[in-house]
Amino acid sequence: MNQPEMQLPAGAFIDPQGGNRAEIERLVDRFVAHALDFLTSAADHPPMPAESPLPEVPGLPEEPADIDEILAGLDLLVRGSMNTASPGCIGHMDPMPTTISMLGEFITATLNNNMFTLEMSPAFSRLEDRLLREFGRFFGLGERSGGMLTGAGGIANLEALTVARNVAFDVQKHGLLGLERQPVIFASDVAHMSLQKATMLLGLGTDAVIPVASDADSRMIPEKLEAAIRHAREAGQAPFAVVATVGTTTTGNIDPLPEIGRIARDEQLWFHVDAAYGGGVFFSDAQRWRMDGVEQADSLTFNPQKWLYVTKTCAMALFRDYSLLNRYFRIGASYTRDAGDFINLGEIGVQGTRHADVLKLWLTLQQIGRQGFARLIDHGCELAERVAHEAEQRPYLELAGRPEMNIAVFRGCPDWLPAGAWDDWNTRLQESLLRDENIFVSLPLYRGHRWLRVILLNPYTDDSVIERLFERVDAFATP
Amino acid sequence: MNQPEMQLPAGAFIDPQGGNRAEIERLVDRFVAHALDFLTSAADHPPMPAESPLPEVPGLPEEPADIDEILAGLDLLVRGSMNTASPGCIGHMDPMPTTISMLGEFITATLNNNMFTLEMSPAFSRLEDRLLREFGRFFGLGERSGGMLTGAGGIANLEALTVARNVAFDVQKHGLLGLERQPVIFASDVAHMSLQKATMLLGLGTDAVIPVASDADSRMIPEKLEAAIRHAREAGQAPFAVVATVGTTTTGNIDPLPEIGRIARDEQLWFHVDAAYGGGVFFSDAQRWRMDGVEQADSLTFNPQKWLYVTKTCAMALFRDYSLLNRYFRIGASYTRDAGDFINLGEIGVQGTRHADVLKLWLTLQQIGRQGFARLIDHGCELAERVAHEAEQRPYLELAGRPEMNIAVFRGCPDWLPAGAWDDWNTRLQESLLRDENIFVSLPLYRGHRWLRVILLNPYTDDSVIERLFERVDAFATP
Repeated sequence: MNQPEMQLPAGAFIDPQGGNRAEIERLVDRFVAHALDFLTSAADHPPMPAESPLPEVPGLPEEPADIDEILAGLDLLVRGSMNTASPGCIGHMDPMPTTISMLGEFITATLNNNMFTLEMSPAFSRLEDRLLREFGRFFGLGERSGGMLTGAGGIANLEALTVARNVAFDVQKHGLLGLERQPVIFASDVAHMSLQKATMLLGLGTDAVIPVASDADSRMIPEKLEAAIRHAREAGQAPFAVVATVGTTTTGNIDPLPEIGRIARDEQLWFHVDAAYGGGVFFSDAQRWRMDGVEQADSLTFNPQKWLYVTKTCAMALFRDYSLLNRYFRIGASYTRDAGDFINLGEIGVQGTRHADVLKLWLTLQQIGRQGFARLIDHGCELAERVAHEAEQRPYLELAGRPEMNIAVFRGCPDWLPAGAWDDWNTRLQESLLRDENIFVSLPLYRGHRWLRVILLNPYTDDSVIERLFERVDAFATP
Repeated sequence: MNQPEMQLPAGAFIDPQGGNRAEIERLVDRFVAHALDFLTSAADHPPMPAESPLPEVPGLPEEPADIDEILAGLDLLVRGSMNTASPGCIGHMDPMPTTISMLGEFITATLNNNMFTLEMSPAFSRLEDRLLREFGRFFGLGERSGGMLTGAGGIANLEALTVARNVAFDVQKHGLLGLERQPVIFASDVAHMSLQKATMLLGLGTDAVIPVASDADSRMIPEKLEAAIRHAREAGQAPFAVVATVGTTTTGNIDPLPEIGRIARDEQLWFHVDAAYGGGVFFSDAQRWRMDGVEQADSLTFNPQKWLYVTKTCAMALFRDYSLLNRYFRIGASYTRDAGDFINLGEIGVQGTRHADVLKLWLTLQQIGRQGFARLIDHGCELAERVAHEAEQRPYLELAGRPEMNIAVFRGCPDWLPAGAWDDWNTRLQESLLRDENIFVSLPLYRGHRWLRVILLNPYTDDSVIERLFERVDAFATP
């Protein structure tokens, strides 16, 4: 084998005849040991690093660095990262992932297949296609449903809205300029910003997302939706889609799917459900009713990378009628090998080349099972109830709404301070929780104010963390 | 810790206090051993699996499977995959990746940070920002340059064309409907289909990519570009960008960047260089001249996931003026924590949530170094010359053009058969190479015919593979 003449480090590539297995094993062992040393002591590290600039690591060197230097740099980067494995890291939708999804990611990386075409990923393309058809039926979208994995929930939303736009208007080939009326979509005023990004990309402009008022619990008000559609039509616009959210970004609330679905049907609008975060509730026997109505969806975004604990990225776009992708999205890659009846996934997705995210999903499904997810999800919902209950006990705290999943959001409204000082008070409280208790909660801007957002994903987060959280809140509120 | 009450398998998650380290190590060892057993004997496995349906693996089970069953299913999936580690796997742009990029992917998976915001990926967001500024300067784009990693070269092209569109037309907020003239871009007739996908997504339609004739070596003809721009203006269209390709998809050729850059400047058009594949030549002292002119680019796509041997996905979009992203792309995520001067990468990229692809890139750069890449790249270019030389020796073979990088494309034109039978002959030759020699070359459709495409990426592919390839070609051509 010719590698020596290229003067590369001994383990730079794996000799396919096994010639450097010993070097490879040494290298793997060092990285694995580094990872496990950190992860098995994650509770002792802060959930977020102290604020600091990027560690001084080299960029693009002329000559190779030795492995000790590289590992020293890696260590700085790991310690400078968000520590999702800490039971006190309860501020974002990024979970501690399943062990097997981490290992799946490693296997996927070793194989380096490409989801662009069937030929470049024979097993994974077929597995993804089959598994997503199964997810389509699982969510009640019917026998013609199917979909694909995408690199983010926002990409899944973009994929869905692209198809919705192309179904409604004949613009794939000639573009939007010939249209007489401005296409618009409707979503609640607390829906995710990826919708504006999608309409900006799609040439419709960010204004094409018409915000519909939501109630005190962040749920879209159906009567307001009907009025908004009527108003848009009267103004000469061309409504083509309605987006309902399952698990709003800040408070984790759920739009009333049955009513919104009915309105979309009556108005002949595409019905997209963005369940990127909240779709997890469908796995719980106790919580599934919250997603009643999802079976009406024309398309659905759901991210196993969030509440199914699959390491990033793993998001899916599902369609009631998968065959629409062939007609209303497909861009042929004529240079590729014909894949027979199978449509190359890169021809019908926003991405071309794509990582095989399906393996880590498949592995996680096998090891946890639907019922295992149900227990994880119920546990998170119970803890969120506990947080809400504790907040309600304290007159100087306000809840942002009833939790509908594993998210609870509250803020201090201390009546001994002017209301104008409350944002600052909550900001300092958040900092104190991190500094003094190793508890990280996020600090979203919501309805014009700063709130403390608690997301109960980590399976090692338990009542003791909630107790410490409120002990610190009490101490902070005591002059 | 409360995990036991959830009845999850012992190693499902890593106890952050170390309680299940023994189980975790057992699980890791089994997966690593599986991967290394396969990779260190990859030369003994076919480069592509025999054609077969998806192995019978379960989908979404109610109850967990045991780990032996899971590993048995994994083994079927691995054996059903493209075997990029085989020295005979020389048909696609998907390399055997560096060992350290595989391990980086594992570390990234364990940390599960999110490139959406600085807060969710403090070290990796800053590292990506800094490293891409360095890449911008490396490619000669100047001190104001920078960019981001994206999930695919096609996404990088979309990112660049979005900014180009938004700079040229005031459409971010209100969309395209008010425009009077159809925006169009120019690219060679063998440019990548991701450009049509991008203009379809962007609401311009697939027809908005105006194909410019290329010469016999698949390089755009500058005079044809000038004529196409003039013709479009005369027809009332609104040209806004020119795309030059470095490393065409099928034959790996390079458009004449200096001339195209000059035309773009004279015509006041955005100049995008799609060097997704071919950007690697810039790392070689011997080959860098081929990219002269790239320093004129307004934006540049380059995929370390191809010729820099970083495992998927790792693609970059670079901009001459990074600050344009703030003005002409940014969609604010108002709910996130303010990141000070740092612009959250999810606000200025097509993707929101994103995997930290930067770690495996950084690790690979450290271990290989710029000079190591130069040796790898020169080696591939030499082998491509060798393939071209062998093809030229045989009167019944035709080269698709002079190799300009590590790609050589040829086909049989056996004069003892009618020309109409040649596609079939080449198809059967490709099948014979796979079946009889464990050599996989791809079979693209190019200028209306089937060709054999050889891509010399694998560092363990050497002269002996080329010899076997042509011995089989000779045997096949001998009646």
